Amino acid sequence: MTLDPDLARTWLATAVEEARASLAEGGIPIGAALYGADGTLLGRGHNRRVQDDDPSVHGETDAFRNAGRQRSYRGTTMVTTLSPCWYCSGLVRQFGISRVVIGEARTFHGGHDWLAGHGVEIVLLDDPECVALMTEFIAARPELWNEDIGA
Amino acid sequence: MTLDPDLARTWLATAVEEARASLAEGGIPIGAALYGADGTLLGRGHNRRVQDDDPSVHGETDAFRNAGRQRSYRGTTMVTTLSPCWYCSGLVRQFGISRVVIGEARTFHGGHDWLAGHGVEIVLLDDPECVALMTEFIAARPELWNEDIGA
Repeated sequence: MTLDPDLARTWLATAVEEARASLAEGGIPIGAALYGADGTLLGRGHNRRVQDDDPSVHGETDAFRNAGRQRSYRGTTMVTTLSPCWYCSGLVRQFGISRVVIGEARTFHGGHDWLAGHGVEIVLLDDPECVALMTEFIAARPELWNEDIGA
Repeated sequence: MTLDPDLARTWLATAVEEARASLAEGGIPIGAALYGADGTLLGRGHNRRVQDDDPSVHGETDAFRNAGRQRSYRGTTMVTTLSPCWYCSGLVRQFGISRVVIGEARTFHGGHDWLAGHGVEIVLLDDPECVALMTEFIAARPELWNEDIGA
C-alpha cells in the first residue's frame, strides 16, 4: 500500500525532532523512528557517536534498539532524516523492514537504491529542513561527519 | 597482505570465547573481535539480544562498539564465528573494514560474497567447533534464532 504523503511528513517530523535533539546535545543531527504496520510509533532515536562515544549507534540503529525485540518487522517503516548508510541499509534488509521514508539524499547517498532493488519501498521526501540541518553540520564539523561514515 | 592461517585461527579463538560466553549467559552463541592493522585487539564482543533485550547488538556490532571510536578502519580485521548477516556486512562495508575472518558459513550464509565483491578480503575457516555451536543452538532454540535474523 502506498504511504499517504501527509502521513510520511508527519512521521518525518518525529525523526527531525530526534535530529535536532542530537544537535542540541552536541551530536550528529541524524534522527530516525520506526513505525509499526498499524502506524504505531515503535521506537525513535538519534545518532549517539558523540553523546555515548559509541560509533555503533546511528539514528536508525537507535530507533531499532529503542523499539525493543520484535517478532517480525513486516509492514514496518523506518523513517530517517538522511539516506541510510550501508550499515543501516543492511539493518533494514536483514530484518525485513518493509519501507524506508528518507528526509533527504542530497548531502549523503547511502544504500537506498540497493534496498529498492531488494523490494523495500523507498519514499524520498527531499525535505529542505533536513538538507539544511546536514549542510550546516557538515560545514561546521567535517571531521566528525567523516568519522561517522568511515570516510 | 594475505593473513597467516595460524594467526587467523588464533584470532578466531577470541571470537569463539565470546560465543561460548554468550551461550553461558543464556544468549545466542555468536562472537566477534576487531583486530587492528598491527594485530592489536581493538574490541571483542558477542550477541546480546537475550542478555540486554537489545536486538541491535550482534557479535560484530558489539565488537565494533567495544573498540570505541576509531578514525579509520583501514587494515582492520573483523573476526566472527558466523558469516555476517546483512546488518553486520553493511557495517563492514560502511566503515571500510579491510578483512573478515569467518568461523563458518554452513549454518547461515550472510553477506560475505557481497563484501568480497566490494574489495573486502574474506577468510572462511569452516571451523567444526563453530559449526557445532550453531547447529546445537539452532536445534535447541529455533524461534530465538529466527528472531535474531528476522526470519
